[in-house]
Amino acid sequence: MQAEIISIGDEILIGMTIDSNAAWIGNSLTHLGINVYQNISISDTKDHILKAVDEAFSRSELIIVTGGLGPTSDDITKQTLSDYFDTSLVKNKSVYENIENFLATRGLEMNDNNVRQADVPEDCKVLPNALGTAPGMWFEKEGKVLISMPGVPYEMKYIMQEHALPLISNFFNRPAIKYRLVMTFGTFEAKLAEILEDFEKELPENVSLAYLPTSGIIKLRLTGRGDDEDLVDRILQEQVDKLYGIIPDLIYGLDGVSLQGVLGSILKEKNLTLGIAESCTGGSLSSMITEIPGCSDYFKGSVIAYDNDIKMELLGVRGEDLEKHGAVSREVALQMARGVRKKLETDFGLSTTGIAGPGGGTEDKPVGTVWIAVSSKEGDFAVKHNYAFKRMNNIRRASLAAMSLLRQKLV
Amino acid sequence: MQAEIISIGDEILIGMTIDSNAAWIGNSLTHLGINVYQNISISDTKDHILKAVDEAFSRSELIIVTGGLGPTSDDITKQTLSDYFDTSLVKNKSVYENIENFLATRGLEMNDNNVRQADVPEDCKVLPNALGTAPGMWFEKEGKVLISMPGVPYEMKYIMQEHALPLISNFFNRPAIKYRLVMTFGTFEAKLAEILEDFEKELPENVSLAYLPTSGIIKLRLTGRGDDEDLVDRILQEQVDKLYGIIPDLIYGLDGVSLQGVLGSILKEKNLTLGIAESCTGGSLSSMITEIPGCSDYFKGSVIAYDNDIKMELLGVRGEDLEKHGAVSREVALQMARGVRKKLETDFGLSTTGIAGPGGGTEDKPVGTVWIAVSSKEGDFAVKHNYAFKRMNNIRRASLAAMSLLRQKLV
Repeated sequence: MQAEIISIGDEILIGMTIDSNAAWIGNSLTHLGINVYQNISISDTKDHILKAVDEAFSRSELIIVTGGLGPTSDDITKQTLSDYFDTSLVKNKSVYENIENFLATRGLEMNDNNVRQADVPEDCKVLPNALGTAPGMWFEKEGKVLISMPGVPYEMKYIMQEHALPLISNFFNRPAIKYRLVMTFGTFEAKLAEILEDFEKELPENVSLAYLPTSGIIKLRLTGRGDDEDLVDRILQEQVDKLYGIIPDLIYGLDGVSLQGVLGSILKEKNLTLGIAESCTGGSLSSMITEIPGCSDYFKGSVIAYDNDIKMELLGVRGEDLEKHGAVSREVALQMARGVRKKLETDFGLSTTGIAGPGGGTEDKPVGTVWIAVSSKEGDFAVKHNYAFKRMNNIRRASLAAMSLLRQKLV
Repeated sequence: MQAEIISIGDEILIGMTIDSNAAWIGNSLTHLGINVYQNISISDTKDHILKAVDEAFSRSELIIVTGGLGPTSDDITKQTLSDYFDTSLVKNKSVYENIENFLATRGLEMNDNNVRQADVPEDCKVLPNALGTAPGMWFEKEGKVLISMPGVPYEMKYIMQEHALPLISNFFNRPAIKYRLVMTFGTFEAKLAEILEDFEKELPENVSLAYLPTSGIIKLRLTGRGDDEDLVDRILQEQVDKLYGIIPDLIYGLDGVSLQGVLGSILKEKNLTLGIAESCTGGSLSSMITEIPGCSDYFKGSVIAYDNDIKMELLGVRGEDLEKHGAVSREVALQMARGVRKKLETDFGLSTTGIAGPGGGTEDKPVGTVWIAVSSKEGDFAVKHNYAFKRMNNIRRASLAAMSLLRQKLV
């Protein structure tokens, strides 16, 4: 069984938008054990849409189409699909009400364009969109399926996760392919591959290992195949346990959890509070921590001390140490962590100070030099990292490293 | 004249790699006035490559192929193209020397795989690759061109910029297609389309308008076509000016700039400083501001006051107002903005307080309710927004809205 992905929109062809949807969908289908034959990006024209859909239907059982469902006149996907499936657009009451509610909660009224969005092909199943005005649509023809969704990534992902993926899983019956993700942080891919060389050689025949690095975090994906789903699950769990034995410090969690999520769970469980002092990470560390719903149970707040005066006045960093050692130093990182812990009256203080770049580097302290510190009643601890990436990546690595350091101190 | 892009690699289909190459190439071709008909991602199989290349050749004058040129055995693009163009692989001395040098400067010696990379189809023009071992290749057939390059983005970009784009520009002689992007924030696509209905109707025949929404920011793309490049530029500029007349508050910049970049430029130019007090945005607003290199010229720091005690102690928010109006209120937003401005001794204070969700909503203040305030010597100002998205999107919108409000107060 195979699937194809069609992305509609001139903005993709002229390179104004990178088509991240196709990768996300390809990944989701792969997880369901469905082979993606190809993905194609085409223009917003009726002829091109009809041609791509017709060719895909001739080859594959599942077609996923994104884009061209907005309220404006250049969005012609819905009418074109309605023609292709030989049906017609009719006003859909529940879609109308969803659009009305969606706009009402934002203090907006429906205009003609929105009203037109409530017209849906008569023969399709509506996949409700709680995050926008264009619904998803599920068409069936000769035992094959076409799903059409808006191209806005979070709307597409919502419709896929809430509606389309469960329906696909049900409609098509596939042999078991199971995945486990082992989440690691703290080393480089080549180094990790060296450590895990023997582990990989000893894997059972029906299990494979892949490295999925994404700026700092390396996911180890174990794929197991077989007819007995429970047996595959058990075999994968054995391999996960084995990995924990080999790289206990590097593994921070399983199956797609985030470092901030794991850290939050530990803090919550231990009933501990956290305050943060950021310099080079400029809010990125705090924003990761506050991605987690309910983080107010353990996260009290932060001081982003970009300016040295603020390091001194709000965090109590000593001027003489700033002078002597510079803002990017063990001494200043430790004083920031201690200072924020005392100021915000938290159990733990976590700090970052470094040179994110592109400017500000020196021979002694090149761009990417970062000091990270943790402070608690039990004592203070600082560590230095040397990244040599571009600004945004240095900031991200430093934020991850700070969370990783705190996690290791907590477990 | 039209072009097509073919990306080869299973890693794209299963979603491990987002195909950013296609967007970059699409953008480069568009700037040369070449229309991209479609781009397609396919698997590393000979049949699929031959089918895609043959179909593209039947339609389009220029085919750009990336991927499948690495040293490992699953990289079969070169042999397949050699077969397609009915030629054979021969050892290329200059390619061999380039690989040898490339490896030598990294302390490596050539292995068998590298030696094979020096075999190149006899009838193609080599496009040297200074950043890797796989060369680019330029094939011609019946007045049409196919270019094959490695899929590693920086190698592909090097070969395109140094060799392929100048050759393409020379080989094909094209009328100009020009684009302008007008960046807007502050309303929804349907609403914007309503406001711009007359503008769109009155557009000159050779100019078209498209809406490109991405969670809050809507880019308006104007496309102009014609033989005289300067004339097209002038016509587009007239339309840009007209848009500024219709939606002056919504437009924050042109041609892909970010709100944080624009805001930073204004603050720097006016020699003003900024302090931030965040509650619901939890560091996201500050992290956007600090994305900009050199932001320390105007950004002093932030207080992330997730906890009400910190709102009181560090920002001077009155306990009685927290009690009476709640943390998500005009009063508290104003006191936070004023408080951080005084505490950090900056010209401007900017604050956010709201309910990011998923929990914490009430009937009066549902999830997505956000108050934003600006404070300066000239006075204080607060505004309320009702978003009703998921947590991360509410946080993003609130951060963008805060920057947008400050921008409007500054210009």
